[in-house]
Amino acid sequence: MSSIASITSNRAWILTERPTGLVGPEHFALKDVPVPEPGPGQMLVKSLYYSMDPTQRGWLNDEESYIPPVAIGAPMRAGGLSQVVLSNHPDFAPGDIVQATTLWQEYTIVDPAGDAIAPVRKVDPSMPLTWTFSAFGITSLTAYFGMLDVAQVREGDVVLISGAAGATGTAACQIARIKGAKKIIGIAGGPEKCSWLLDEGLVDAALDYKNEDLTKRVSQEAPEGIDVFYDNVGGSSLDAALANLAMRARIALCGGISTGYASWVVDEGPKNYLFLILKAAKLEGFLVVYYAERFGEAVADLVQWMQSGKMKAYETVIEGFEKAPETMRALFTGGNTGKLILKVADPD
Amino acid sequence: MSSIASITSNRAWILTERPTGLVGPEHFALKDVPVPEPGPGQMLVKSLYYSMDPTQRGWLNDEESYIPPVAIGAPMRAGGLSQVVLSNHPDFAPGDIVQATTLWQEYTIVDPAGDAIAPVRKVDPSMPLTWTFSAFGITSLTAYFGMLDVAQVREGDVVLISGAAGATGTAACQIARIKGAKKIIGIAGGPEKCSWLLDEGLVDAALDYKNEDLTKRVSQEAPEGIDVFYDNVGGSSLDAALANLAMRARIALCGGISTGYASWVVDEGPKNYLFLILKAAKLEGFLVVYYAERFGEAVADLVQWMQSGKMKAYETVIEGFEKAPETMRALFTGGNTGKLILKVADPD
Repeated sequence: MSSIASITSNRAWILTERPTGLVGPEHFALKDVPVPEPGPGQMLVKSLYYSMDPTQRGWLNDEESYIPPVAIGAPMRAGGLSQVVLSNHPDFAPGDIVQATTLWQEYTIVDPAGDAIAPVRKVDPSMPLTWTFSAFGITSLTAYFGMLDVAQVREGDVVLISGAAGATGTAACQIARIKGAKKIIGIAGGPEKCSWLLDEGLVDAALDYKNEDLTKRVSQEAPEGIDVFYDNVGGSSLDAALANLAMRARIALCGGISTGYASWVVDEGPKNYLFLILKAAKLEGFLVVYYAERFGEAVADLVQWMQSGKMKAYETVIEGFEKAPETMRALFTGGNTGKLILKVADPD
Repeated sequence: MSSIASITSNRAWILTERPTGLVGPEHFALKDVPVPEPGPGQMLVKSLYYSMDPTQRGWLNDEESYIPPVAIGAPMRAGGLSQVVLSNHPDFAPGDIVQATTLWQEYTIVDPAGDAIAPVRKVDPSMPLTWTFSAFGITSLTAYFGMLDVAQVREGDVVLISGAAGATGTAACQIARIKGAKKIIGIAGGPEKCSWLLDEGLVDAALDYKNEDLTKRVSQEAPEGIDVFYDNVGGSSLDAALANLAMRARIALCGGISTGYASWVVDEGPKNYLFLILKAAKLEGFLVVYYAERFGEAVADLVQWMQSGKMKAYETVIEGFEKAPETMRALFTGGNTGKLILKVADPD
């Protein structure tokens, strides 16, 4: 077990400059910082894993969002799995592994009463720790509420999913399958990801947005139109979906990763949006944080699906605290499938 | 009463060329045509009034829509009020005034069993005939279902309406008021229409899209954001609305009159559509024809609102069969307020 006395250094990745486009190591500096002292009700924790999420890119913009931006000169914020070193909170003891909004900092403070995105909670150590981020993490929760609550996927639906090989996409494909979708069409970048999607049985057809005409391919794979489009990506795949809607189709707009979340304002809006009129269809946005009070219900379903073998965790784990910024960049440029996770340290 | 013997000529406006942009007299030719003979179950009718509707522009495009395009060489299709001259149908007698999908042709055939957009029905002659198109017409029905079913306007909502001085817009403003909207903000073109909207009490604030920065003006008039946007227009007003949404806002997308309905594909899509994510808002399209089986319920409400003085009919009536194409163009360029109607003849 770590003790304060045994901690000899504490590194942090500090935001030095706001990216305007793609984020990467050039926007951060690795610094040694003092080990912080937990106040009343707080804990000192050791970082074990970081979740790498597209939404983190938005935290770097100096504009209105669902939480304040990360300040210049402050360590980067992240979803983290950490082990308690010192606790001034009655519900948590040294050695406990907790899921909390944390920092890119090896040792940091977690405050269960603080202004976090989601409540701090103890993690069940009987399941693989990384499942916290892959199977039960924010991306799976996003797929869960996006597919069930926003898109209202139903038995017999033809479902199109962009970013299908990613963390949210793999979960969305599996949830659509569990709910009885008739056909699942995934969009991904490159022939390798497309083959992988088919080999894993995640989709019934895979479209390569880098090498194929999406509008044409969607019309071939879904000649009667798509009932649901789960859009992780924005950009050209949205126009392809809009041109191929079935009557009363539902589009869940979960993000705009193709814009790199550089801004809520895009250079080119969807030119085909008027097809929403012809097909009496809807385009509905959401952020998973707005469902925070229903996370428990979602995790209960996800745990049951994992334990019954209906669902599988897809993850890519990179190791090394020093790789945090480059791993974040890889989220937007990389070839990872499933959930991208950074491993920082083993638990004691 | 007209009889076949008394009819000396029969003029028709024939589509000669498909417009690519704005429609006008150059796309039609005025021709003399034979008086048609009604077959079994059909009627010969005399045209009295034509409804002038933006959706008619779409009927001129050779592309997929909810009804086939008007053929080159055929008379233009229109919503019409007509008087029965000869009837081979047991439910209709000479002299009856009927509402039916008809043609820009002085004497034409109406077939109650035919493939029309809405059922042929007798009009109650105790109310002004033009109310059929203004108060109870397709544009009022559009506002009714768009505001109540799609946008689900509720008491206390801040409501933005584009094309507010038009036929659908004036109805949408009044329906929002009846349902208890807290504030109604109308968008119209030019200071005269804006003053008119305020003078009539249709809106609480009027924004002039020709002379004002809509995004800024909406944020001033709705600092907490808009709950409902009833979009008759498309284009820049949609982006202004998207930048000023309240949480869980609903946008009813009723048309794209600013594109002239030249196509379902626009040159510039809404650049601000990602705000739907931040505000968990939805953009939903509809065509009033999809509500055909609920028209009776809507008309019952509209009649009651008209008779109780809660609602008023707004109409601009132009006279003369020969003015049909130029009146259709005025729908897109003109300064008319309320419903644009062409009067062709008085009933006998």
